[in-house]
Amino acid sequence: MACWIWYFGDLELYHSCRMHMRRDEFDYHFPPFWRLDDAHKNVVFRKEFVLENAGTIRVHANGRGMLEVDGRRYPYDGREIALDEGRHVIEAKLMSEEVPLLFVKGAVESDETWDVSCYDGRWVKAGANWFFREADKCPVKFPFIYKELQPASVEACTDGVLYDFGRESFGPVTLADTAEDTCVWYGESREEALSPEAILQQRIPAGGECRLPARAFRYIRVSREVGIRAENELLPLRRRGKFSCSDVRLNRIWDVAHHTFHLCSREFFLDGIKRDRWVWSGDAYQSYLINRYCFNDREIMRRTILALRGRDPVPSHINTILDYSFFWIMSLEEYHLMIDDTEFLRRVWPLAVSLMDYCLARRDENGFAANEGNGWIFVDWAEMDKEYAVCAEQMLLLRALEAMAHLAAVVGEDSSRYLREFNGLRGRIDEFFWDEEKGAYIDSYASGKRNVTRHANIFALLFGYAGKKRERILRNVLLNDAVPAIRTPYFKFYELDALCDAGETDEVLRRIREYWGSMVDGGATSIWEEYSPDEPMEAQYGMYGDKFGKSLCHAWGASPIYLLGRWFMGVKPTSPGYRTFEVRPQAADLDWFEGTVPVGPWLGEVHIRVQGGVCTVCATVDGGTLYWQGREYPLEKRVPICVGEA
Amino acid sequence: MACWIWYFGDLELYHSCRMHMRRDEFDYHFPPFWRLDDAHKNVVFRKEFVLENAGTIRVHANGRGMLEVDGRRYPYDGREIALDEGRHVIEAKLMSEEVPLLFVKGAVESDETWDVSCYDGRWVKAGANWFFREADKCPVKFPFIYKELQPASVEACTDGVLYDFGRESFGPVTLADTAEDTCVWYGESREEALSPEAILQQRIPAGGECRLPARAFRYIRVSREVGIRAENELLPLRRRGKFSCSDVRLNRIWDVAHHTFHLCSREFFLDGIKRDRWVWSGDAYQSYLINRYCFNDREIMRRTILALRGRDPVPSHINTILDYSFFWIMSLEEYHLMIDDTEFLRRVWPLAVSLMDYCLARRDENGFAANEGNGWIFVDWAEMDKEYAVCAEQMLLLRALEAMAHLAAVVGEDSSRYLREFNGLRGRIDEFFWDEEKGAYIDSYASGKRNVTRHANIFALLFGYAGKKRERILRNVLLNDAVPAIRTPYFKFYELDALCDAGETDEVLRRIREYWGSMVDGGATSIWEEYSPDEPMEAQYGMYGDKFGKSLCHAWGASPIYLLGRWFMGVKPTSPGYRTFEVRPQAADLDWFEGTVPVGPWLGEVHIRVQGGVCTVCATVDGGTLYWQGREYPLEKRVPICVGEA
Repeated sequence: MACWIWYFGDLELYHSCRMHMRRDEFDYHFPPFWRLDDAHKNVVFRKEFVLENAGTIRVHANGRGMLEVDGRRYPYDGREIALDEGRHVIEAKLMSEEVPLLFVKGAVESDETWDVSCYDGRWVKAGANWFFREADKCPVKFPFIYKELQPASVEACTDGVLYDFGRESFGPVTLADTAEDTCVWYGESREEALSPEAILQQRIPAGGECRLPARAFRYIRVSREVGIRAENELLPLRRRGKFSCSDVRLNRIWDVAHHTFHLCSREFFLDGIKRDRWVWSGDAYQSYLINRYCFNDREIMRRTILALRGRDPVPSHINTILDYSFFWIMSLEEYHLMIDDTEFLRRVWPLAVSLMDYCLARRDENGFAANEGNGWIFVDWAEMDKEYAVCAEQMLLLRALEAMAHLAAVVGEDSSRYLREFNGLRGRIDEFFWDEEKGAYIDSYASGKRNVTRHANIFALLFGYAGKKRERILRNVLLNDAVPAIRTPYFKFYELDALCDAGETDEVLRRIREYWGSMVDGGATSIWEEYSPDEPMEAQYGMYGDKFGKSLCHAWGASPIYLLGRWFMGVKPTSPGYRTFEVRPQAADLDWFEGTVPVGPWLGEVHIRVQGGVCTVCATVDGGTLYWQGREYPLEKRVPICVGEA
Repeated sequence: MACWIWYFGDLELYHSCRMHMRRDEFDYHFPPFWRLDDAHKNVVFRKEFVLENAGTIRVHANGRGMLEVDGRRYPYDGREIALDEGRHVIEAKLMSEEVPLLFVKGAVESDETWDVSCYDGRWVKAGANWFFREADKCPVKFPFIYKELQPASVEACTDGVLYDFGRESFGPVTLADTAEDTCVWYGESREEALSPEAILQQRIPAGGECRLPARAFRYIRVSREVGIRAENELLPLRRRGKFSCSDVRLNRIWDVAHHTFHLCSREFFLDGIKRDRWVWSGDAYQSYLINRYCFNDREIMRRTILALRGRDPVPSHINTILDYSFFWIMSLEEYHLMIDDTEFLRRVWPLAVSLMDYCLARRDENGFAANEGNGWIFVDWAEMDKEYAVCAEQMLLLRALEAMAHLAAVVGEDSSRYLREFNGLRGRIDEFFWDEEKGAYIDSYASGKRNVTRHANIFALLFGYAGKKRERILRNVLLNDAVPAIRTPYFKFYELDALCDAGETDEVLRRIREYWGSMVDGGATSIWEEYSPDEPMEAQYGMYGDKFGKSLCHAWGASPIYLLGRWFMGVKPTSPGYRTFEVRPQAADLDWFEGTVPVGPWLGEVHIRVQGGVCTVCATVDGGTLYWQGREYPLEKRVPICVGEA
């Protein structure tokens, strides 16, 4: 099937580069503080093939150049070109200031079997994507869908007119005319739209109709009466995961989380839609996990992985953050588990190796990823003793090494180096960071403070590195109120994941209700970047020194989708691509729940309903095993199973 | 003095990338078959400074982002920003889909002392150029000058109207209206413009006024009567070199060569203006030498050097041609001799090292740059035995190694490696390629044919590697009609240079008259890519399989400017930047000549007049030495000297 093709990785870099240039605040733009790679501008595509019958082709391109069919030259004008039966060679020489893209349809069709070169002496297989299959829909324009939004209310206000569109949205606003200078203020909250300190605002000089760039808003304030049209710009994604239960609040949380997550799922998995609209590796890693339980979309995952990594040589840690390099490597393993796409892994393997080389080359004398000129040690927005080597980073490095060893085996490369590094580091972490007296991992050994936070301990549990220390860590840290609470949804993701893994599902439901529940009770139509249930919502719009700096629609807040899918519906792949998977439902304190979880890349689904002690499960694919009340039940394709006692 | 600044090398890459996308032929575009690097899209400029007095600045940019002055953020809107006296820091974060460019004017000004980073963990000094000093003339648009051309004649012809603009030109043609579909054919010759096989032609669909892309032409044919306006688009370059003499034909050659050379001197030194309009390293090397004697412009030289080299890692030989990598390295030495700009050399030194590493890594078991998967062995458009290692390539590698050793010393790096390689290779060349019986270097030892062409022998003489073999080579090869003649102006450059060096100035004048003289006698208004005095001009428009494929305006044809300046006016720098230079006039068979040669980068000039045995010289700078009739005369600034006997 014909699809648009490009130099492998380049369409992703092109869109990433353009998208990262769009962040604006107040009257300036805000560039990312890391290198943005762009697409190659001059490439050549090549295909040799044999036709059994004569036929014709039509060739379209983004860019210009010459199409050579058996040595004869054509422009890229979509004309019909006749081909006899027999052997043919097409060389499509193509250059573009954007990104060279090719589409061939007919007797031979463009797809990922074509070769492409950027004239560096190497041919690689083209990048391609079933998403882009129409000649007249060139992927240089990202194919969002648009839907006009109707305001829920319009009111006159001081300095203009205020529109409330009822819930968090993202898209372009069009002013019918700009006969006079006009100002537009965007608000994720009413207070923001009414304030001159709204993060997103634009002054439009007098002129004709004006369509503003797509931005995040629930509220729009316009400085004068003028017709406006607001549209929602959305990535067409199929909502495959579903969940409902006896707790209507939890249902509301699921819906709001899903809305949040869809808004943040665009060219790539973004952090949030007001700002930064950037791709962050740590945020993206959580999005991959959430994606499993709602869209199960492989394409956005591939796009995000490629965009984040950029080209060699490695210019800095991913997003300049040490932890985010490790998450990128871990992402590949998650991708493999979800998709089972060894071919893609083979293609990005050299990028993984060079990134891990970059990380390993920057270790200290004890073999730790330390804080000396080594990028930003983020971990979380939290108080933490970050002097020199930080334990949470070593946990992530350890996990990334384990992932490299595993991936090496998958792609048929030598894994012994990574295993050796893994084993060495694992011992050194315990030696330097484990505090036997506190029964917990400390943040830093260099400072002498022996401070304990939750982060490294959560990772130790979650990644399975705690061993016999498991119970002590749980008791001394995760279930110990004396250890400062996690405040960001970002790290709550890992904390609740670890608690679920430890069987604390009731506690997790309680925390979800407390944190997310109080957010949706307060009227949030999307999940916030950070939130404190103890403060009034309107008192916590600020962040990063700006009165309305906080993002009120942040992907990492959508973790309930993951938690409910992974631990309550209980579905997870147990071999790559869901060739096998388990369904281990847990009702916790819920009277009933039912839902659907996508399984595998090819539109498989598993439906689960639990009520009382009875569990009903049906999968559209083979490979599942249901675990219920201590027993296993193999799932057969499309054969419902109903087990348990009420 | 404020000037526009950019990431070092990026403005050159940006314009090179765009320019190389413009070649068109018939109805398609013709992409280069090598990698085109583009500018970084996201960079940050930085300057710390202390103001003695309070002041203001205005900041302009190509691109968008945020300007941080002492931590406060501004858009790039050129507003006045006040600065107190004392210490300040400006960080200008800037992204562009084209090339990020910054201009700061006022209390502190943008120049090459600013730092810039593409977020790869390194700061480098900014690229800057006195050429771009005005806020409203952003160098993203290359600052050509335009002059309307008046047709010398207009005539009706079959299928349209033919305009003759009197001489070779380059620029945009504007059609007053395109009420109907219109076709435009360009011709460097009348025959080409009248032919449907004109290389440059465009069909314009019906519409309004239409300005076509700048192209080469002397003749324009339009398919129907419609007002056209043709403009000449030219780089503003000061015509500093002058020459006139008692031979009016030679004067005409100088003028036509100068016109040719100016047309081909644009964003960079191009090969020709009809096609390819590409930058070729071998062609550019000759342009650098010609440039010495007419424009003496350092900026176009720097631009060309940077554009040709591109970024690391080396993707292929320069222009994919083995010889052209060597010429690039040699260019740096020529640049240094002409400009004395150690700072620039230091900046490109790593690029020279990696290119030479690339060349050395691809040698064969005898240490020769051989023909195995090693790019295109060009040397010249000539019959030559190119089996395996080719002698001319080794001569160039030897010369490039010598240049590297010299440049290493200039920039304070270790030259021993290059000297060692040089000495080893020099011996091996004689061992493998010198034929004692023929008294000449052979093309190839591998084939067993022991074929002799002029090329390697010319290089041996020219680069001073012939030693005691000098006279034999001259007699057996260069002055031996049995050895096939050089046919391209490209290689005639080196041949005539070598003959001049051997004292054969009368012979060189004879050959210039024969070859170039017959071209201008035939009515050429620019020098051709290739030419045979023995055939009618209208029979030799073809090349590369196209009836009008030959470029009739080709920079490498402008060598008489170099030859007359270097060997007849006799001026050459004897230390970098013309701190010292020699003037060694030779009248040969001319009754008289006079001229001006630029000396040094800072608008120095030396005026020379020779008539009979009397030589009059005056230089506007110190450092010159006149050699006349076996004696030396030191030249004092602005003190005319008149020596010799009539």
